[in-house]
Amino acid sequence: MNKRLEGRAPARPTIKAVAAAAGVSTAAVSQAVNGTGRISEATRRRVMDAASELGWSPSASATALRRARTRTIALVVRRPTDVLGSDPHFSELITGLEGELAPRGYGLLLHLVADMAQESALYERLVAEGRIDGAVLTDARADDPRPDLLRGLGLPAVLLGAPDAGSPVPRVGLGQQGAGIREAVGHLLELGHRRVAYVAGPAELLHTRLRLAAFEEALEEAGLSPVAVRHSDFTERAAVDVTEELLALPDRPTALVFPNDSMAVCGIGTAQRSGLRVPDDLSVVGYDNLSLGRWVHPRLTTVDQQVQRVGAAAARTLLAGCGEDVPPPVLDGRPRLVVRESTGPVPSPT
Amino acid sequence: MNKRLEGRAPARPTIKAVAAAAGVSTAAVSQAVNGTGRISEATRRRVMDAASELGWSPSASATALRRARTRTIALVVRRPTDVLGSDPHFSELITGLEGELAPRGYGLLLHLVADMAQESALYERLVAEGRIDGAVLTDARADDPRPDLLRGLGLPAVLLGAPDAGSPVPRVGLGQQGAGIREAVGHLLELGHRRVAYVAGPAELLHTRLRLAAFEEALEEAGLSPVAVRHSDFTERAAVDVTEELLALPDRPTALVFPNDSMAVCGIGTAQRSGLRVPDDLSVVGYDNLSLGRWVHPRLTTVDQQVQRVGAAAARTLLAGCGEDVPPPVLDGRPRLVVRESTGPVPSPT
Repeated sequence: MNKRLEGRAPARPTIKAVAAAAGVSTAAVSQAVNGTGRISEATRRRVMDAASELGWSPSASATALRRARTRTIALVVRRPTDVLGSDPHFSELITGLEGELAPRGYGLLLHLVADMAQESALYERLVAEGRIDGAVLTDARADDPRPDLLRGLGLPAVLLGAPDAGSPVPRVGLGQQGAGIREAVGHLLELGHRRVAYVAGPAELLHTRLRLAAFEEALEEAGLSPVAVRHSDFTERAAVDVTEELLALPDRPTALVFPNDSMAVCGIGTAQRSGLRVPDDLSVVGYDNLSLGRWVHPRLTTVDQQVQRVGAAAARTLLAGCGEDVPPPVLDGRPRLVVRESTGPVPSPT
Repeated sequence: MNKRLEGRAPARPTIKAVAAAAGVSTAAVSQAVNGTGRISEATRRRVMDAASELGWSPSASATALRRARTRTIALVVRRPTDVLGSDPHFSELITGLEGELAPRGYGLLLHLVADMAQESALYERLVAEGRIDGAVLTDARADDPRPDLLRGLGLPAVLLGAPDAGSPVPRVGLGQQGAGIREAVGHLLELGHRRVAYVAGPAELLHTRLRLAAFEEALEEAGLSPVAVRHSDFTERAAVDVTEELLALPDRPTALVFPNDSMAVCGIGTAQRSGLRVPDDLSVVGYDNLSLGRWVHPRLTTVDQQVQRVGAAAARTLLAGCGEDVPPPVLDGRPRLVVRESTGPVPSPT
């Protein structure tokens, strides 16, 4: 970075001059300006004073550095605002992204939009105004217009989802998206369950389709079909409603599979409130492997899809595209079932 | 907005010309460019094509509109990345902010920093580079350098916390920060509890001090003192460790008060795993009133500090400062106890 900063027009004050005046290295100047590294407040002030005295502006340097060096990555979420609050999935994703972005002084520009048209218009505006260096695309759809749009705009992007060599932008995620659900069904079948119900996410999402297909196939291979399949909007309120409905079915399921952990925890609470014991009377499986599931009672059996690691890998892919020196992204294969205490042998028929 | 957009140098194409060419209103052009409103994808494309044909650039207009009209608000979080993932408090805050920002086409620029020096340097850089229109300051400290810094930088800011007329920047939050904890203690005393332990947040945070003082005063007024006070880093792991430690005390507490809901839920799980019933053997109080607490079993007694509403009020205060036409922020007084099922009468001595 220092070399590039020094390569400006000679008429203007240089970072070297600022470093010399402040009695620090150019790296320290860079850190003071970028808010990275571990320099003291006193050093930072000395650098800023020297910069101010010499008329050296970090802004001008940053602009000179590269046309679009904003150190900002966009994360546009096409969801109602209340899901952001209730579904910890996004906090986990943001945590994974920030773990890579923060140490390099990058920020995450979060926008919530109502639909795909708004999302597309937003990328065009952010690119036109030079506000971002890249974008993380979430909630891949079967017919997703964004990869082509962003390639057209020349903006580095990654799409979260199963790797696909034919995609116009890199896809970052675990392979075999259905593998965790297949494992979950296998686990329930081994425990003797035959009446399993599936709570899915919104029907238009690609991962909803992949996971539901895996669920139905795995049951079909055992000569079974789901007791019930219900789509949901991922909210806790929906978890309560759907659990109450499923537990009132004449052919009551002995196991419920949820599309995220917060819904699974709410499903357990709803079952317990109706007098059922988990897992004695009802087995429950979540999805995401959030830390909460490790501590509730009973501990949650869930599918680990490594949300934080996927976020970190997406960030590294984008950072590499921005010319940053980052280790290659590491992702460990496929979603895996984590068996804890919320699943158990099928209750004997009463 | 249209009037301002039209007030550019006459030599350049106008938004009016773009609107006429696309056969839409100037408001629709503005919506197409900003990704706001409810226009169809077809209309949006028509507008973008007309803009492109006439050589009208939304970027230039946006710049002309006002020097620093970035439609971006900064949220800098001075916490380890893993707390962001495990504490839903930030998701709730972001949800509240986005509920006001998103409909107006504003984004939230999220940065994680390690300490106050990094946070200060970051504001200086973001202002110097013209990247933000305002900032939301969280985790107020007793001796907080940020209000003076941001006033000096000329950046609109709000500091989350109890209102304080003497503050250099507006403070947005509920008054009487200790009121919820006082109510919680009163509730536990009424239920007959005398051995109450308090799990606090990090000691350097202002709200940690205010709440702890309220807790100790409320007990003192009843002639009691806490069985134990422990500081924590807000994580679920800490909740498990501190709960195990407190339940092993010779003078075991009959009630635990936690600094957030996710810690309280983990505390309940830890107590249940050790064979204790909640609330029969142990009462537990949370803080935040997250939606999760409504659905777990037993439902969580907690203090509602209206995190989403505080976020919304902070966003409105900043948006008004950016010249947006927003309703005045509304906040309902003070934190209040929400009594549910995780608190009950003190167990009879064994």
